[in-house]
Amino acid sequence: MTAGPTTADAVLDVLQAWGVDRVFICPGSTEAAFLDATLRRPDLEVVLTTHESVTVAMADGHARATGRPAVAYLHTHLGLVNGLSHLDAARMARSPVIVLNGLKPASVQSHGGFTTLPGTGELARPFVKRQWQSLTAEGVPEDLTEALRLATAEPTGPVWLGLAQDLMEAPATGPVPDPARHLVAARVAPDPERVSAAARLLTAAQRPVLVAGAEVARHGAHRDLVRLAERTGAVVFNEDRRSFERPAFPTGHPQYAGNYSAAHPAAAGADLVMLLGCRSFIEFEPDPAPATPPGAKVVHTHVDAAEIGRVAAVDVAIVGDESLIVRGLLDRVPDGAGPGPEPATGVPRPWAPGDGDHATAADVAGALAEVIGARTTVVEDATTSAGVLLRTLPQPSPMSILTTASGSLGWGMGAALGVQLAAPDREVIAVVGDGVFQFGPQALWVARRYDLPVLFVVINNRSYAAVAAALRRYGGLAERTRTYPGKDIAGVDIAAVARGFGLPARRVTRPADLPGALKEFLSRREPALIEVLTDPDDLGGAPR
Amino acid sequence: MTAGPTTADAVLDVLQAWGVDRVFICPGSTEAAFLDATLRRPDLEVVLTTHESVTVAMADGHARATGRPAVAYLHTHLGLVNGLSHLDAARMARSPVIVLNGLKPASVQSHGGFTTLPGTGELARPFVKRQWQSLTAEGVPEDLTEALRLATAEPTGPVWLGLAQDLMEAPATGPVPDPARHLVAARVAPDPERVSAAARLLTAAQRPVLVAGAEVARHGAHRDLVRLAERTGAVVFNEDRRSFERPAFPTGHPQYAGNYSAAHPAAAGADLVMLLGCRSFIEFEPDPAPATPPGAKVVHTHVDAAEIGRVAAVDVAIVGDESLIVRGLLDRVPDGAGPGPEPATGVPRPWAPGDGDHATAADVAGALAEVIGARTTVVEDATTSAGVLLRTLPQPSPMSILTTASGSLGWGMGAALGVQLAAPDREVIAVVGDGVFQFGPQALWVARRYDLPVLFVVINNRSYAAVAAALRRYGGLAERTRTYPGKDIAGVDIAAVARGFGLPARRVTRPADLPGALKEFLSRREPALIEVLTDPDDLGGAPR
Repeated sequence: MTAGPTTADAVLDVLQAWGVDRVFICPGSTEAAFLDATLRRPDLEVVLTTHESVTVAMADGHARATGRPAVAYLHTHLGLVNGLSHLDAARMARSPVIVLNGLKPASVQSHGGFTTLPGTGELARPFVKRQWQSLTAEGVPEDLTEALRLATAEPTGPVWLGLAQDLMEAPATGPVPDPARHLVAARVAPDPERVSAAARLLTAAQRPVLVAGAEVARHGAHRDLVRLAERTGAVVFNEDRRSFERPAFPTGHPQYAGNYSAAHPAAAGADLVMLLGCRSFIEFEPDPAPATPPGAKVVHTHVDAAEIGRVAAVDVAIVGDESLIVRGLLDRVPDGAGPGPEPATGVPRPWAPGDGDHATAADVAGALAEVIGARTTVVEDATTSAGVLLRTLPQPSPMSILTTASGSLGWGMGAALGVQLAAPDREVIAVVGDGVFQFGPQALWVARRYDLPVLFVVINNRSYAAVAAALRRYGGLAERTRTYPGKDIAGVDIAAVARGFGLPARRVTRPADLPGALKEFLSRREPALIEVLTDPDDLGGAPR
Repeated sequence: MTAGPTTADAVLDVLQAWGVDRVFICPGSTEAAFLDATLRRPDLEVVLTTHESVTVAMADGHARATGRPAVAYLHTHLGLVNGLSHLDAARMARSPVIVLNGLKPASVQSHGGFTTLPGTGELARPFVKRQWQSLTAEGVPEDLTEALRLATAEPTGPVWLGLAQDLMEAPATGPVPDPARHLVAARVAPDPERVSAAARLLTAAQRPVLVAGAEVARHGAHRDLVRLAERTGAVVFNEDRRSFERPAFPTGHPQYAGNYSAAHPAAAGADLVMLLGCRSFIEFEPDPAPATPPGAKVVHTHVDAAEIGRVAAVDVAIVGDESLIVRGLLDRVPDGAGPGPEPATGVPRPWAPGDGDHATAADVAGALAEVIGARTTVVEDATTSAGVLLRTLPQPSPMSILTTASGSLGWGMGAALGVQLAAPDREVIAVVGDGVFQFGPQALWVARRYDLPVLFVVINNRSYAAVAAALRRYGGLAERTRTYPGKDIAGVDIAAVARGFGLPARRVTRPADLPGALKEFLSRREPALIEVLTDPDDLGGAPR
């Protein structure tokens, strides 16, 4: 190795100048110079992971919880592909995840050597704002600065940068670019005429509906949205079940009506639907029903023009930061402009455990709703159980629930750890299905290694319920004979697997035992797992 | 659903016409029509898996063991990316793996709906011979036939075909193409003049060296290669450690000298090196030493011209099927043309267990060598322990050891199951590292579900030894302080995890206990796991 600072040292200089104090990594031999350099940085934490799906999901969770860039350092194209499904989740959440990808030295790449693939970055292309490989050692600090600039510029999102081993081992040259002069994460104000047009529609509407999208939460506009709702008396939804990634309106508010659906009684009669920072809409299957109530005017706002009017037609499109959009509406809508609030339909009924022997997903949701508090973050990755969880769990703040609209199974296992690391004061509960569990058991290793007190609650119906539900909808021989191939994934003692990874764990079957188990494990403030056996034939309705 | 046969039925017609009687699948909702159709096929086995890395590795293992096409059915782009690292292994082994990829219906794709990605097949491009999406229901049987034709045509390899949900649910139309008229898996004979030139070099050589590549085994030329070796007296190597995927020369043969290296005493003085069906060479790090002995003539044969002379310069290049090449050489080389054989250096010394408390990778290799027989297949995926395993394990046939040169961790966990399913009479042992184990624990679920009697032997040094070895080579602060960041992955009770998946399992620490444990578990003929604790500071030398 070289005597003085290397390019790997310069990479750490750049990261720390940008305030990055943790790097999530699943390393191989190409990362030696980087790992060596971290030994000189007691103020930088190397978070080791044992599978890239966890590396990326952790970085995504960390970025969501902090709003700041998070670095996932992967090894060659093989590590990259293992992380791509959760990079899709980061893309949809617009998380500023920087994927640094260790690559073999130039000559080994040229010779088609071990673990090389020409154009590795092309694999990342669909999931990132930009991807490229540093071509010279002296260009690396500039390239990394550019990656951080791009990831944090609105609309934010992941970026991929390839770093070959020989460049990282080369002597450092040149200065580190000043982050203050390269951080262009500027808010974009909406066109005032469009905001005025939207405000006029909102003032004139008799039955307005507001739909609070994830971008409202990400841009910190959720408190102003409550004011706007109260001023107008509008019925408010969070995003529809498929698009939903986090709450942007408190579900305990009397004007809250649930997750949006055009068929929902509180939406069907609306004369105005305002889709604020929503990804509208993510279809699961072809749906002949209109996505907005017929006859209703539609306003759609988003920081990314490409998201506006993607499926539903729009009367007023507004591009900009949601904090400035909602504030602009508040400035223009007179007090008491709207009708009085509709009776709330979104507040869940209180849950009481049955005395049955077998719990349901609804029992898990009900018991969770009893024990969680304002400082709880539920990271939800439970496929067919997502619906009942969204309906049941109180969501007072944008950090109450985090999920992904990407469908990438296993995301919640790692994302919960990233959230917990970023927000040590929060009580983080990962609620996942048993199928999902098998897409991320390696997260348990990380939880134990870093003693991250995440409680994993696994709803174990021993089924790919989404597959069975699809076979039911299909209505073929499977449904007629009640024989669902591809459904039965019984056979794992998930609590035992968790104990193998060093976590205290318990299997619960009776609904009445749920609140006690949850309270006990939450009070321990250490990584732990509760496996809840539910009915394999409780297929839910929400497919994978 | 439609009343009569669907396109999904037609897909099964095509597969069964081609002799495919198993489909490896990790399904989601888009596979409903396919799964439903399988209920009408008692003679087709749906092999359910719980992670796509296992799906693809199983298909690869199955294809390697049978030489016939194997189908991995994955769910959307998310399932695809999870399978790509092992698809790279299938690509390198030239396994005819057909990846069928369930996609959302056309309108949902167009709308950017749930789990859609435009151009999903582009993600597979680097790993397959061709990738495309069926555009009409009536075109699906033809497309699938084309996929099978391409995968099985030399040089064989994986193919990707996208199948949207709406097409699969549509009524079947049109006939199934006749496989007999679309199977063009023809052997390619080498240029006879080139074979004569090579034969002349071989006849004239004083110190010839033959290197037996994986293609010799795949083309069934290994028995003729023994005759050629004995006729010429040449020293014979299997491929070098990095390129090696399976033995093509019996390691117990007196002329066998080990895995090829230009620096090996039996190679350094050669005047002719014949690289027969080898992928020569896969570099790990830039290596200033020549890949073939200076002054030696080089003959390189391969069915894929692109592989010949990729790193080392070549005097005679021969493109063709190895069975015809080796037979052509036999026809042209006179008996006793060469010198007498060198003393064998490749036969391992007998192993005796020490009386220490801690086993080493060498102990695992030695104990395995004692207990395995001619019907054993060792599926090796043990990174830093690979070298000692290759040196120690007897390899009488091309099925004695299977491994991957791709570096995709976890491959061995699933591949072993595919081999066992394809070859039920074989005794299959997967030898993996603890890091590797965490890249494929879901394979244990499949092993239990289908009662595949694979014995998993996990060499647990609680380390990313390859990372530590790289830090040692790098020679920086880590090496000076003996502090290796990214190395320590202790904390998993692997036997306990295996029991959680329903497998009998045992942790072994003393070398003397190894043979007994291996024999006992092998005699049970059920899936099982032995975790061998080895020294975390036994870093080996073979990096990831």
